[in-house]
Amino acid sequence: MRNESNVSSYSKVFPATFEYAKGDILTDKNGKEYIDFFSGAGALNYGHNHPKIKEALLTFLEKDAIIHCLDMDSRMKDNFLEKFESIILKPRKMDYKVQFSGPTGTNAVEAAVKLARKVTQRRKVISFTSSFHGMTATSLALSGNLEDRQKYYPSQEVIFFPFDGFLGEGADTMEFMKRMILTEGSGVELPAAVILETVQAEGGVNIAGTKWLQDLRKFTEENNILLIVDDIQVGCGRTGNFFSFERAAILPDIILLSKSISGFGLPLSLVLIKPEFDQWKAGEHNGTFRANNLSLCTASAALDFWKENNFQKDISERSLLISAALERLKTESEHIVAVRGIGMIWGLEFSSGDIAGKVAKALFEKGMMIETCGNKDQTIKLLSALNISLENLQRGLEKLSVAVMSLNKSEAVPA
Amino acid sequence: MRNESNVSSYSKVFPATFEYAKGDILTDKNGKEYIDFFSGAGALNYGHNHPKIKEALLTFLEKDAIIHCLDMDSRMKDNFLEKFESIILKPRKMDYKVQFSGPTGTNAVEAAVKLARKVTQRRKVISFTSSFHGMTATSLALSGNLEDRQKYYPSQEVIFFPFDGFLGEGADTMEFMKRMILTEGSGVELPAAVILETVQAEGGVNIAGTKWLQDLRKFTEENNILLIVDDIQVGCGRTGNFFSFERAAILPDIILLSKSISGFGLPLSLVLIKPEFDQWKAGEHNGTFRANNLSLCTASAALDFWKENNFQKDISERSLLISAALERLKTESEHIVAVRGIGMIWGLEFSSGDIAGKVAKALFEKGMMIETCGNKDQTIKLLSALNISLENLQRGLEKLSVAVMSLNKSEAVPA
Amino acid sequence: MRNESNVSSYSKVFPATFEYAKGDILTDKNGKEYIDFFSGAGALNYGHNHPKIKEALLTFLEKDAIIHCLDMDSRMKDNFLEKFESIILKPRKMDYKVQFSGPTGTNAVEAAVKLARKVTQRRKVISFTSSFHGMTATSLALSGNLEDRQKYYPSQEVIFFPFDGFLGEGADTMEFMKRMILTEGSGVELPAAVILETVQAEGGVNIAGTKWLQDLRKFTEENNILLIVDDIQVGCGRTGNFFSFERAAILPDIILLSKSISGFGLPLSLVLIKPEFDQWKAGEHNGTFRANNLSLCTASAALDFWKENNFQKDISERSLLISAALERLKTESEHIVAVRGIGMIWGLEFSSGDIAGKVAKALFEKGMMIETCGNKDQTIKLLSALNISLENLQRGLEKLSVAVMSLNKSEAVPA
Amino acid sequence: MRNESNVSSYSKVFPATFEYAKGDILTDKNGKEYIDFFSGAGALNYGHNHPKIKEALLTFLEKDAIIHCLDMDSRMKDNFLEKFESIILKPRKMDYKVQFSGPTGTNAVEAAVKLARKVTQRRKVISFTSSFHGMTATSLALSGNLEDRQKYYPSQEVIFFPFDGFLGEGADTMEFMKRMILTEGSGVELPAAVILETVQAEGGVNIAGTKWLQDLRKFTEENNILLIVDDIQVGCGRTGNFFSFERAAILPDIILLSKSISGFGLPLSLVLIKPEFDQWKAGEHNGTFRANNLSLCTASAALDFWKENNFQKDISERSLLISAALERLKTESEHIVAVRGIGMIWGLEFSSGDIAGKVAKALFEKGMMIETCGNKDQTIKLLSALNISLENLQRGLEKLSVAVMSLNKSEAVPA
Repeated sequence: MRNESNVSSYSKVFPATFEYAKGDILTDKNGKEYIDFFSGAGALNYGHNHPKIKEALLTFLEKDAIIHCLDMDSRMKDNFLEKFESIILKPRKMDYKVQFSGPTGTNAVEAAVKLARKVTQRRKVISFTSSFHGMTATSLALSGNLEDRQKYYPSQEVIFFPFDGFLGEGADTMEFMKRMILTEGSGVELPAAVILETVQAEGGVNIAGTKWLQDLRKFTEENNILLIVDDIQVGCGRTGNFFSFERAAILPDIILLSKSISGFGLPLSLVLIKPEFDQWKAGEHNGTFRANNLSLCTASAALDFWKENNFQKDISERSLLISAALERLKTESEHIVAVRGIGMIWGLEFSSGDIAGKVAKALFEKGMMIETCGNKDQTIKLLSALNISLENLQRGLEKLSVAVMSLNKSEAVPA
Repeated sequence: MRNESNVSSYSKVFPATFEYAKGDILTDKNGKEYIDFFSGAGALNYGHNHPKIKEALLTFLEKDAIIHCLDMDSRMKDNFLEKFESIILKPRKMDYKVQFSGPTGTNAVEAAVKLARKVTQRRKVISFTSSFHGMTATSLALSGNLEDRQKYYPSQEVIFFPFDGFLGEGADTMEFMKRMILTEGSGVELPAAVILETVQAEGGVNIAGTKWLQDLRKFTEENNILLIVDDIQVGCGRTGNFFSFERAAILPDIILLSKSISGFGLPLSLVLIKPEFDQWKAGEHNGTFRANNLSLCTASAALDFWKENNFQKDISERSLLISAALERLKTESEHIVAVRGIGMIWGLEFSSGDIAGKVAKALFEKGMMIETCGNKDQTIKLLSALNISLENLQRGLEKLSVAVMSLNKSEAVPA
Repeated sequence: MRNESNVSSYSKVFPATFEYAKGDILTDKNGKEYIDFFSGAGALNYGHNHPKIKEALLTFLEKDAIIHCLDMDSRMKDNFLEKFESIILKPRKMDYKVQFSGPTGTNAVEAAVKLARKVTQRRKVISFTSSFHGMTATSLALSGNLEDRQKYYPSQEVIFFPFDGFLGEGADTMEFMKRMILTEGSGVELPAAVILETVQAEGGVNIAGTKWLQDLRKFTEENNILLIVDDIQVGCGRTGNFFSFERAAILPDIILLSKSISGFGLPLSLVLIKPEFDQWKAGEHNGTFRANNLSLCTASAALDFWKENNFQKDISERSLLISAALERLKTESEHIVAVRGIGMIWGLEFSSGDIAGKVAKALFEKGMMIETCGNKDQTIKLLSALNISLENLQRGLEKLSVAVMSLNKSEAVPA
Repeated sequence: MRNESNVSSYSKVFPATFEYAKGDILTDKNGKEYIDFFSGAGALNYGHNHPKIKEALLTFLEKDAIIHCLDMDSRMKDNFLEKFESIILKPRKMDYKVQFSGPTGTNAVEAAVKLARKVTQRRKVISFTSSFHGMTATSLALSGNLEDRQKYYPSQEVIFFPFDGFLGEGADTMEFMKRMILTEGSGVELPAAVILETVQAEGGVNIAGTKWLQDLRKFTEENNILLIVDDIQVGCGRTGNFFSFERAAILPDIILLSKSISGFGLPLSLVLIKPEFDQWKAGEHNGTFRANNLSLCTASAALDFWKENNFQKDISERSLLISAALERLKTESEHIVAVRGIGMIWGLEFSSGDIAGKVAKALFEKGMMIETCGNKDQTIKLLSALNISLENLQRGLEKLSVAVMSLNKSEAVPA
């Protein structure tokens, strides 16, 4: 549209005008269909317009239930909190208080950092290379991935350390961080918190090792530094378990959820806080659209998937299919540098951002939505719905294979 | 709920568990009804579950329209942008680009400040005493209203100046600001932007005079300082016109809308930018829940109210009723210090926060929701829906009158 | 010299190569003499090479006394501290601890602000329009006078308020500051300290009224804000008393002295601290050239002037002479906008910086050193030695008169 | 003294009242003598009251030469600049502009960082673990060594990286820094400057390797980052050459000198700037005691030592003596962990700060002044005059040996 701001970005990456969406398929206004390997940047783990969730939503709307009520108590909020406790927290032996921050991921990040600073009375926050946490002042400063967008802001007291693997095979990045923080006279103050994504999605599908995560948890615990896990993109089942850190058997002090927590693409964010750190005064962090009941309604419905035994099993099955397909493709194409992934988030790293971009663009033309990520946009990120049909998954992987192999024929291999 | 964070605040102010809401009436789970003079802190200018908007929403949902698509182009986004242009901007001779920031007001504030800093290459931002702009780092720092919540943050390069009237009758606060900014050697750098609410809602229903607003516009224009009007709470008709600054016949450089823009209490924010300042690069400010189509659907439906000639006339009629009732009450009660208001936002200032709190509490018990505001919570803020039924308006004003007059009998007048 | 940095400034203002200096007269390498109405920017209150001080210095040097000993105890340091106590502090009933900060004024400022932040556990510091406090990060940020030099630095948490008179006759700047600081929700945090020059020398010879100073002292005391008086340029007798604030009968919490404290132009700074605020840990602020004994030797000798009854009387006499001459000149020249002064610091404000610059330049050519000051360099600052000979004072005032009156003939009066 | 601030520190380390000092010997008021292995924390490289320098000083004083003249041109300044060019810069093929900053080291640091930010238009500055640069806001923030003194200051945009050796034998700290700065998305902005001491004196006599220094120079040059060498403590011959970086055959962009540059313990600082970076405007960094001529007089006299061929040879001879003595001592005492040194700066690291402190204290009682350094004060720092007499050097080393060996008998070896 003529009067939309230049800031609009996905409209340039996916140049079509969309009209309908159901499950794994989007349809534009001309009737062209697209298989979805993008999932609203991680906000649609259960696909578009899932009938079960939609049914709950319609029922809720039809009875004139209260929709907007800030953080007042409501039947729907009670309902959600009970289900979240019984379906998600209890079975994992997790004891957390639930804060409804403003309904965006970045708002949850801001709340978490504010609370960590309050609790510890310290000011510095540690973040990692290639991280992404959002677009408001604090979140932006925490995003290694975004440096030139930071220059319009004053310093936010953030210190960056290398993520697991950032310094190459041999280097022990955790040991380095410990030494810089703990050695007297190093110039690095003891921080209020460390914030991390256990799998860096925007940063290129970088997966922290379980030992690294355990070391980090031990180190932060011993030094009374709050560990904040930003599970906004890779929580809600994306890595195979509901929380991304379950594979390392650790418990963060603060956990951030957003994107797929509403299950339907509606705005909602949660900040989970260990009870001893829930030192908020009433209203100390607020917001108009906290705990909005339309999102809580779909979120409650989506929690039901996690009662089903088969749900996680189906993810594993799909994960194996993707893994196998990508590894095969890697052996066939010299353009592919690496394959990384876990659960339903997979990265196919190419030798350059240019080549990855060509593949994504070709796929869009062929009716498939997929995005690049990484510091140089050199990695294709496979991010379909967790419950994508096996048929669409297969079709998508084939399209991807064709696009990569076409590349092989027409593109010169970089020197 | 046992597992909700202590941060929850309205649940303490309005201690009930709500279940239904329609128009001006909320109903709790025990069937008790409440007249709404609160309107979701300004997010429900058209009341709860307005049937016209709800109908649009149900139609949209039923056809499996795409709901979550970030800022990709969609039928619904096109539709909204066209209607916003033709119904709101064109008739007011306003030429602005529309940015969909993250769907919270604070995100719109962050986007605006970031853009102003980029455009001007300056770092300081001016805000006013008693202002409120939100809870993320930049917005919080811009909120005079919130000082003790700021201590966990580094400096955000904000300078505070007195709002119109802050220094008492005679004092020319605009002249003071000009002198501090323009005199060489004053220590005050030329700022990137000035941000203001033309009516400070949280700050106590403080209303900037039209001359003051015009002087500010002239001053900022002459000095290439961007003027940002935060119309999040008092836009969308709250003051009688769609935008709160229309009464002063000025055009800000950036306008922020949220709260009632979706018309249904769903999360949505807009940043309106004069075309010459739309210097964003694609994706320079983004967010998962920008331009979510469920909110755009209800927002589009709500715009239709502004096509009707009678809509603004009805607001005026109600405004006069409120004004008359409050002025009368003031003459009758010695507890009332001042009456301030415009359109459908009115403040009844009491001699102390304690007394105002007692009135609000008594009203809640009698089935009416109303909130206090101001630096010491000494002001009762009347914020009903713009289209509240005359009957409910009258009932509410009577309840208020009774509560205040009961106070007269039982309370000692403060010395 | 070819290899000196461009940063050199006085070499451009006073383009000569100086060789000798005695009392009120400088001599350049060509033998040309200059009457000194500049006094090393305030560092030479007792004139150049005063024989009594020089004698003390030579004696000290000849016996191989220890010269550099950081802040170790030494005979000379003991001697100085005793004399400072008995000659300066005791007779004024002042009880202060003496800190030897690094030997520059800016270092004393940094120490004072650091201490105030430590004592109060607050971070903001208030400074005034047109102030000057030095060139290191904190001092620079406190200098309203210097704004474009601040842009290379991060924010230093400084808030500027209008100095007495800055807003014109009627305006009560102190009342304004109180209201901005004390009103809840104003956005202005309670500061750690207020720093001020009671007479702004660089800022244009702006003199705070005694009532204003008393109000400030009362306000800061009542609110546990530390009051720091920067007496670096106008202490050591410049305003007629040893300390510039004596005329207002107030006692600051921290007092900064430098420039003329050594009496001979040698680097030395003192930070005087009320005992209850001397909360330093040993070494918490240090520096190689603290308490250097060569400076302490001359400083001790200079203190003797303050034992003499006639010393202050002589200042008064000279002050009256200057005042009369300037007031007369003002009646005679339409270029002069204002005359301001106290003790031995006087400002002659012209209608523009251009005209003031011409006068200063003409005087230098005629053998007289005098400097401009003020936000637009529009004020000639008379800053001779306190003990300038009556003959040289008279000669200087005549030269000044001639220069101004010549201007009258040749210059067009600005429209 | 009763009225001196608690901040005084060396008076507690060396509890005596000093009166005379000549060459390598200090004498207290009771006539007790002390051999000087401390040299005024590096400000007395040529010993106390060197007769040649003193003679120049007395001659200068006796003729009433101008002493205080800010940065005006003077015979003495010309003289100094010529000698500095011909004796120091020319023979080393160094082309630098000379800035006289305020006469303290910290002021030189502040000037250098301000200039680097201006030249590069970037804001971040890199410093190293265990560094020390001074006590004003910027310098303090650059001092890893001092972390708890930083908490009273806002962030100064400093990033710390590990100094050569900080991470232990195998770790390539330079490679790490390069990767963190150059990898896109690392979160670390390209900095304005890197500041370092090639030998960290306060930090524990840590010596950067020549390859590390060369790599750093190459890296900073290729990325247009200004390299600032803080030679305040280890310049002026301390490491054997006049500049400490000569051993690595590199040329920094900015060089800071202070402490021993005046040769007599008088306050003086120089900022040497490559001509292309001398982008100061006149007066953009100033100060009352810049270029004070008394210090320039002694500094000029001290430069003469560097004309003598034997001067550096004598340093080498002494260095070898110290090295041999310390290595021997290390083999004899199990309390000594490491010996590090170069030229005339040597560190004897003990197993704890407690033990090192006992040795220093015992030595003071036996008439020898020596200081500890390092993050835990665990290292005795030998810092005698460069031209210490062989006799006093030998006596000092023997005293040290006795003190350490006495320790062996009485102290339990830590587990």
